[in-house]
Amino acid sequence: MYRSHNCGELNVSHINTEVTLAGWVQKSRDKGFMNWVDLRDRYGVTQLIFDESRSQKEVFELAKTLGREFVIQAKGTVIEREAKNATMATGDIEILVTELKILNAALTPPFTIEDETDGGEDIRMKYRYLDIRRNPVKNNLLFRHKVAMEVRKYLSDLDFCEIETPYLIKSTPEGARDFVVPSRMNEGQFYALPQSPQTFKQLLMVGGMDKYFQIVKCFRDEDLRADRQPEFTQIDCEMAFVEQEDILNIFEGLTRHLLKEIKGIEVEKFPRITYDYAMKTYGNDKPDIRFGMEFGELNEFTQNKEFSVFNTAELVVGIAVPGAGEYSRKEIDALIEWIKRPQIGASGMVYAKCNEDGTFKSSVDKFYDQEDIANWAKTTGAKPGDMIFVLSGPADKTRTQLSALRMELANRLGLRNPAEFAPLWVVDFPLLEFEEETGRYHAMHHPFTSPKPEDMHLLETNPKAVRANAYDMVLNGNEIGGGSIRIHDKTTQQLMFKYLGFTPEQAEDQFGFLMNAFQYGAPPHGGLAFGLDRLVSILGGQETIRDFIAFPKNNSGRDVMIDAPSIIDELQLNELHIKLDLV
Amino acid sequence: MYRSHNCGELNVSHINTEVTLAGWVQKSRDKGFMNWVDLRDRYGVTQLIFDESRSQKEVFELAKTLGREFVIQAKGTVIEREAKNATMATGDIEILVTELKILNAALTPPFTIEDETDGGEDIRMKYRYLDIRRNPVKNNLLFRHKVAMEVRKYLSDLDFCEIETPYLIKSTPEGARDFVVPSRMNEGQFYALPQSPQTFKQLLMVGGMDKYFQIVKCFRDEDLRADRQPEFTQIDCEMAFVEQEDILNIFEGLTRHLLKEIKGIEVEKFPRITYDYAMKTYGNDKPDIRFGMEFGELNEFTQNKEFSVFNTAELVVGIAVPGAGEYSRKEIDALIEWIKRPQIGASGMVYAKCNEDGTFKSSVDKFYDQEDIANWAKTTGAKPGDMIFVLSGPADKTRTQLSALRMELANRLGLRNPAEFAPLWVVDFPLLEFEEETGRYHAMHHPFTSPKPEDMHLLETNPKAVRANAYDMVLNGNEIGGGSIRIHDKTTQQLMFKYLGFTPEQAEDQFGFLMNAFQYGAPPHGGLAFGLDRLVSILGGQETIRDFIAFPKNNSGRDVMIDAPSIIDELQLNELHIKLDLV
Repeated sequence: MYRSHNCGELNVSHINTEVTLAGWVQKSRDKGFMNWVDLRDRYGVTQLIFDESRSQKEVFELAKTLGREFVIQAKGTVIEREAKNATMATGDIEILVTELKILNAALTPPFTIEDETDGGEDIRMKYRYLDIRRNPVKNNLLFRHKVAMEVRKYLSDLDFCEIETPYLIKSTPEGARDFVVPSRMNEGQFYALPQSPQTFKQLLMVGGMDKYFQIVKCFRDEDLRADRQPEFTQIDCEMAFVEQEDILNIFEGLTRHLLKEIKGIEVEKFPRITYDYAMKTYGNDKPDIRFGMEFGELNEFTQNKEFSVFNTAELVVGIAVPGAGEYSRKEIDALIEWIKRPQIGASGMVYAKCNEDGTFKSSVDKFYDQEDIANWAKTTGAKPGDMIFVLSGPADKTRTQLSALRMELANRLGLRNPAEFAPLWVVDFPLLEFEEETGRYHAMHHPFTSPKPEDMHLLETNPKAVRANAYDMVLNGNEIGGGSIRIHDKTTQQLMFKYLGFTPEQAEDQFGFLMNAFQYGAPPHGGLAFGLDRLVSILGGQETIRDFIAFPKNNSGRDVMIDAPSIIDELQLNELHIKLDLV
Repeated sequence: MYRSHNCGELNVSHINTEVTLAGWVQKSRDKGFMNWVDLRDRYGVTQLIFDESRSQKEVFELAKTLGREFVIQAKGTVIEREAKNATMATGDIEILVTELKILNAALTPPFTIEDETDGGEDIRMKYRYLDIRRNPVKNNLLFRHKVAMEVRKYLSDLDFCEIETPYLIKSTPEGARDFVVPSRMNEGQFYALPQSPQTFKQLLMVGGMDKYFQIVKCFRDEDLRADRQPEFTQIDCEMAFVEQEDILNIFEGLTRHLLKEIKGIEVEKFPRITYDYAMKTYGNDKPDIRFGMEFGELNEFTQNKEFSVFNTAELVVGIAVPGAGEYSRKEIDALIEWIKRPQIGASGMVYAKCNEDGTFKSSVDKFYDQEDIANWAKTTGAKPGDMIFVLSGPADKTRTQLSALRMELANRLGLRNPAEFAPLWVVDFPLLEFEEETGRYHAMHHPFTSPKPEDMHLLETNPKAVRANAYDMVLNGNEIGGGSIRIHDKTTQQLMFKYLGFTPEQAEDQFGFLMNAFQYGAPPHGGLAFGLDRLVSILGGQETIRDFIAFPKNNSGRDVMIDAPSIIDELQLNELHIKLDLV
């Protein structure tokens, strides 16, 4: 036993107790005749005291040699502190040390092991094991564990069974890119790492394993955007004999449970909005509804006037920004520049200030009178002191641009309170999405998603109008989960592959096992998956998922701590029956 | 809602209730005017009744069309059964069906979906989703979930934190073979899939995340023996500031908890035996101690006689087999043939029958008198009616051979009762093992295992004698877990790599990140890992781990259901900067 107690648990009730602690030297203050050391472990910090008059000489001298992050073991007596520290759990006591042992010395860490560190992202990633000693990172990992445990308990209590699906599966050319694994035993052949356990969970439903879940790593070899990881974790769920309503209820229940248990927050029944409503109202299928700024469509108040930009636009749409009526001309110009950046791509922006006296001052006063703008204000919900911003152009593009502006302004105005949680369901997603590049439709969710039966007849004539039994759970502007009712008969699944441009041979080759399974008594089924990394980071009130992953990869998919990926030797390549093919 | 109840919960308290059930047709019995259908789901089986006189004509007729494994929904009234079935949870009631809907038809399954199926292993693996419908497989998966949940709860309650370590890591040439993953973004470079999270869990200890665990997939690309899988699951654990004793206590506690919660069995404190004792007494470092048959070393009673085979042998060793005194000459000859098979490789076997009257009859009566054999009997613990079998030869080899015989006879004699659980610890493993093939030592556990401090001085002079702070948990003849106290300082770790034949450059290249981490304040630490697949199969009282894996691979590492691994297309290879290099 290296310790009798941890560094977070001692208090006045332990005074005069003999204790042994072990941990890291957080800091040491040497006053000559007196020396204090803050000793840290996972559980907290406890102050050690070495006193020339009360400590043995060797112990006193040894204490003076301790550097930051030395690992030590200290035995001593709990005594009451003279100068109590109310900000520390153990702040009422200190340990008068009688025995001291250095368990391991430490080089000076390359950055400070403090809540606010002087280390940049790169150096912290290279020495991630030191970064993890810092409270913010440590607490995030503990928090993640707590969330995962609550998920498992909740679902287990509802009779869900966690089942491990394989990691070495079959590669399919469809969708985002697979990581592949050459097989030594099966020459010239490859496994793939799962992008999700989708087909396996459906096969479990065919297998009668009703109510499946799994917290599982998934893999996607795609170019990494700022906050994506090549390996990520899903809470993957599936149920048999269910309709969409059943799924929404169960997983709304799970999310409410998490908010209550983890955050102490009770939320109302989740609003449900359709995809179409979300796009029209927020320009976004994962709207942040913690603040208003809902879109107002202004076509009827803007067209057939002299302003040709609006006259010819498919959509004229605005938002009322609370308190932005005070924006200076300079601020507005900067905002217009911002929205014209290539990433957003608006060609310009019209604004109208709502004066306190009920009048308006717009950038298009030449074309629109006060009554016109009053209608804009009414439609966007603008109040005196607000600013109305208006964009125009092709409907889809313009909505996306206005959504970006809405989120940007909400961030600037501090309207996205991380302590507030506003979950909702977005339902009735389109089944198909037209891809300009390839000139064909692909599945918006995935090829196993069931079309709504009442829209099936539109598949041939108006594919874009076919709605799916698909749904997303959205929290504070992020999709945290999504799923669908699945196709469960071979004929519909074949039809779907046909519409997605598969030849019958391709469909059979890649998904024959699934369609075959559907012939042996497949129940109606559906499910969803949560992104655990994202869920945890939002519940934790933080922005980046990397902060909730013990050993994340950087934007090039590299683990800079262990230096992976790396080259492997010729012998290994030979055994795998591959060779390099470098450009 | 497809159902109001499941197929396992209705009983007499529900009589006259209107219910809706959904599930699979287990079987149907058509008596002309009456038709019974056993409806099955994950939770049980409920009998449906269709009666010409009480059912609507369409419903009655439709019921006659139901085939095995059809998926149906049935609405009706719970009524009391005339002929009750006490073997079924729902055997007191049946459902008089008023509405019937076929949700999905089914082809005739390729094997019967019964507890005892007519399907062989191959066909059941190809249609694993049908195999999972069978109670034995389904119950195994539910059992596995229960075990995993109990492990998580137990460890969480002790403040262990489950932390996900990465799956895309760095390849190391050491040990069993890595599966590798070519990186698209990092041309010519590869990730490896972890054989275990060993270095990461040690880095977590350096990072202060005391008390880590993870239930995690691991990967090993080695030739598959009968009951190995290329991907397998570990309960991986590590603690800081601990000695071997602490680890043994914690994980003995976990195992006792599982035996109690899962099997309702209270076990005594686990025996602890040394590796040397295990080898001398059972010829095996994972002894099954549910039955005796401990080895008796007979050198002192066999040498310096006329029997040259024993005279020249390094070791003469025997076991007493209870009740085997009755074995016929033919049976004994068969046993001698068995032990001479190349897999075992004994050159012969001596036997001595212990007669009921206290005399002995041996195959070497020519050389040994009754008094000699009486000593054999005393040393092996043989009683009248037993048979003593004696092997001789080089010590290590002979022990292994006798261990094989001991296990074979225990199996034949039914001494390995799957309902009995006899866990123990084997401790003080050798640090190093000499490998004949390469002519050098390699780490018996792994290169991070700490030598016992008191044996350190033997590293140069007598490496084989150096014991490690390493331990295995053994249950019923299987190693279910193993671990060690780790090296936690750079100097010792460097020394270890040196003894294992690494050049300093190789050590630095492969494990520099770990040795570097040790310089920044590494605490003493240690841990262990359980093989979940094996643990669950033993707790479940069964032999093969495949039966506890939802989608296992066959002995060629293939998933025959989805047909993986498989070839991938040229385009994918190009993007990964590799090409095939087939023989």
